[in-house]
Amino acid sequence: MGKKLTARKEDYSKWYNELVVNADLAENSAVRGCMVIKPYGYAIWEKMQAELDRMFKESGHQNAYFPLFVPKSLFEAEEKNAEGFAKECAVVTHYRLKTDPNDNSKLIVDPEAKLEEELIVRPTSEAIIWNTYKGWIQSYRDLPILINQWANVVRWEMRTRLFLRTAEFLWQEGHTAHATKAEAIGEAELMNNIYAEFVENFMAIPVIKGTKSENERFAGAVETYCIEALMQDGKALQAGTSHFLGQNFAKAFDVKFASKEGNLEHVWATSWGVSTRLVGALIMTHSDDNGLVLPPSLAPIQVVIVPIYKGDDQLAQISEVANDIASKLRAAGVSVKYDDRDTQKPGWKFAQYELQGVPVRLAIGPKDLEKGNVELARRDTLTKEVVSQEDVVGIVTGLMTTIQENLFSRAKNYRDEHISKVDSFDEFKEVLKTKGGFLSAHWDGTSETEKAIKDRTKATIRLIPIEGEKEAGQCVFSGKPSQQRVLFAKAY
Amino acid sequence: MGKKLTARKEDYSKWYNELVVNADLAENSAVRGCMVIKPYGYAIWEKMQAELDRMFKESGHQNAYFPLFVPKSLFEAEEKNAEGFAKECAVVTHYRLKTDPNDNSKLIVDPEAKLEEELIVRPTSEAIIWNTYKGWIQSYRDLPILINQWANVVRWEMRTRLFLRTAEFLWQEGHTAHATKAEAIGEAELMNNIYAEFVENFMAIPVIKGTKSENERFAGAVETYCIEALMQDGKALQAGTSHFLGQNFAKAFDVKFASKEGNLEHVWATSWGVSTRLVGALIMTHSDDNGLVLPPSLAPIQVVIVPIYKGDDQLAQISEVANDIASKLRAAGVSVKYDDRDTQKPGWKFAQYELQGVPVRLAIGPKDLEKGNVELARRDTLTKEVVSQEDVVGIVTGLMTTIQENLFSRAKNYRDEHISKVDSFDEFKEVLKTKGGFLSAHWDGTSETEKAIKDRTKATIRLIPIEGEKEAGQCVFSGKPSQQRVLFAKAY
Repeated sequence: MGKKLTARKEDYSKWYNELVVNADLAENSAVRGCMVIKPYGYAIWEKMQAELDRMFKESGHQNAYFPLFVPKSLFEAEEKNAEGFAKECAVVTHYRLKTDPNDNSKLIVDPEAKLEEELIVRPTSEAIIWNTYKGWIQSYRDLPILINQWANVVRWEMRTRLFLRTAEFLWQEGHTAHATKAEAIGEAELMNNIYAEFVENFMAIPVIKGTKSENERFAGAVETYCIEALMQDGKALQAGTSHFLGQNFAKAFDVKFASKEGNLEHVWATSWGVSTRLVGALIMTHSDDNGLVLPPSLAPIQVVIVPIYKGDDQLAQISEVANDIASKLRAAGVSVKYDDRDTQKPGWKFAQYELQGVPVRLAIGPKDLEKGNVELARRDTLTKEVVSQEDVVGIVTGLMTTIQENLFSRAKNYRDEHISKVDSFDEFKEVLKTKGGFLSAHWDGTSETEKAIKDRTKATIRLIPIEGEKEAGQCVFSGKPSQQRVLFAKAY
Repeated sequence: MGKKLTARKEDYSKWYNELVVNADLAENSAVRGCMVIKPYGYAIWEKMQAELDRMFKESGHQNAYFPLFVPKSLFEAEEKNAEGFAKECAVVTHYRLKTDPNDNSKLIVDPEAKLEEELIVRPTSEAIIWNTYKGWIQSYRDLPILINQWANVVRWEMRTRLFLRTAEFLWQEGHTAHATKAEAIGEAELMNNIYAEFVENFMAIPVIKGTKSENERFAGAVETYCIEALMQDGKALQAGTSHFLGQNFAKAFDVKFASKEGNLEHVWATSWGVSTRLVGALIMTHSDDNGLVLPPSLAPIQVVIVPIYKGDDQLAQISEVANDIASKLRAAGVSVKYDDRDTQKPGWKFAQYELQGVPVRLAIGPKDLEKGNVELARRDTLTKEVVSQEDVVGIVTGLMTTIQENLFSRAKNYRDEHISKVDSFDEFKEVLKTKGGFLSAHWDGTSETEKAIKDRTKATIRLIPIEGEKEAGQCVFSGKPSQQRVLFAKAY
């Protein structure tokens, strides 16, 4: 707690960083680009994990765990994937330290403990996993393999930002193996749909589903499916991706199976992942100048009760009411914190829980006690009302749904207002500059055009929409024919 | 599945390795000393995690996440800890690969991408965490900090074994900060007790609580509390440790707080952890020559139902009964798999579920259908009985508790029979050789004696018991006075 956050209008990026740190979500560490996820931030991630894990298991997936390290020879086996990640990977070269002969209090890398083959800290696990699957797959009876892993990965990014882009981050990565191309494509689409459902229903963040252009595709994928969300500053954020990998990894690692017909065929693959980056999307979708705003589904504390009192007698009376409300709410499945600490004043507590995005705050003072009332404040609307102690449990329980829905529809209205059809490159540049958001434009399908537009505007193709009508037209840049509009935006 | 396991009597170590691989728990990977935890093994670990996590949270702890890497300068800050782990740590020295100029298809470490300061892959996180706590702690109001982390750690062990000793392993590590010595000691003891409760009640493994001798203490700890279990081959296994770290890390990282009285004091610390090693303990406590034996609390599948049939009509009739039993068991909180695959024969399935330790197997054939019966087989006792379909749900539900208790008491009887009081060094050597297990012996309290005994017998002091009567006597090796017996054993 302490001073107010920088206003979003003033400096959105500064506001974001201050919010993450002041709301106790995360902070930078002594390791360049790596963050510490603090308990409050981690509790939000745990809620996301639990829900995703449930959805994965219900759709037939199992968890497993593969090594942190990838031997260089495996890392380079799938050419495009290796090329895509080589520029940003942490490399283990030694396995021992020894006392510095020049200074007994220091340690140095022991030159005699050099590894024969360098180990790459996984930036993603396709290589190590497909090398393992090779031993698991002989026949069609061994397929499909539907595995997910919760893990840390490392990508040596040069410019990092808490949650959005960190050298180490936490994620889940699914890796599946299938007998047919159609089944693998079905899996990649299914997981993209599951991500969309999770992000929309659980995180209250509206997304658009699509596929990536070749430039933006995952290194080693044949097709990348994605969901994209729009942040408050008009920039897009990729909220999840699901890749159809074709037979690329099966060929690189020589993974074949005997089909029902007795033929030896290469296996078809997918991979899919979401990461702690989603916490950044959560912040930049719902929060305001007062701090974090959390949808009830993700709030570690859904309701906080603060007593306003003078003296122990008054506190005892208020506590009786507060504890009664708390236990009724808990019985209704609502998580409640009763904060009766005497080390902090009510005003400090109000500001703190506002900063931390607790959806509902109840305050009980002497007058409320007299009249049988409670003051109820909603974090999403910043509104207050006085309700009777009798009604409060029913009202708060109902608010859990109301707030969740309100946050989603507010974000969806904003997003929908920021999808602009543009039909000339001048218009493209003008709208991007003045309004931001998604630009729905025709594109000739070439990487050259996409790069030319990116060089001139910093906007990239976020996705080629899967849903909606597909009208033909002319590329906004080259004038060449186009089969459908795609969505451009500046992106995180 | 496939051929039988090597018998335990023949080669215990070989039996263990075959069991781990054949029961689909884990396997070695392409990375030296690192394992792949397969879905069935990981499901057991997930059950352990869920229960431990619940116990940690109920005792006031929160989860957080700290970086995978420790800069060398932080790593070496606490001298004893650094010394203890320097010989086995993986070191990241570079952050980029580039194309090999001599062979375009290969990658090499880019010499220009050398880190200014090497990064150690965490073997344990005291250093990075206490460097972080420094920023979190100013006053007594900031204390205690009660944080746990679920993470992977790396120790470059030269001789590795699946689950028991791997270069990378999964664990949880608690790191707490306190205002007083007494409070920190209380926390270290509390967590050791929580571990004991978990391992005994949930894993059905009896343990003895104690403290470690100086030789066996965690590097950087003032006192190490531990729980020790006894494996079927007479060797001990450390099942969990909890360390009172004194002010060692607070001093190394200059972490002070203003006390209530306004004095600046160093903070008191604890750390505690259990790891995937516990899966090894689970295997070597309960399993037999037919494979894994799981206590119901940890079994991913508690009951399997196998139909024995000829033709679709019979299968349909059996399935009706099986699904009815399955749904009633599920309603009673029992996890059930109905395995009606037609790709495998019943005998194959029986052997497979036996190998994988499923606690109860139900089989339904045409005769059972006729008579309204089910064949019930217990994995722990390898007994079979015929029960009526009417009674089966009640019987199986009851068996969940019965089997859990039976496994615990069987292991406890074995353990108790293998604690031998020895009063001379000849007796010590004789019992160790012929019977193994724990040797309860007097010890003079010196590291010299402990080392001398270890050199001659490979037995170490597993613990100095906390509970039980403490009689004085004479050291079994030196004849010098001793305050209480301690437990020696060969250990994993």
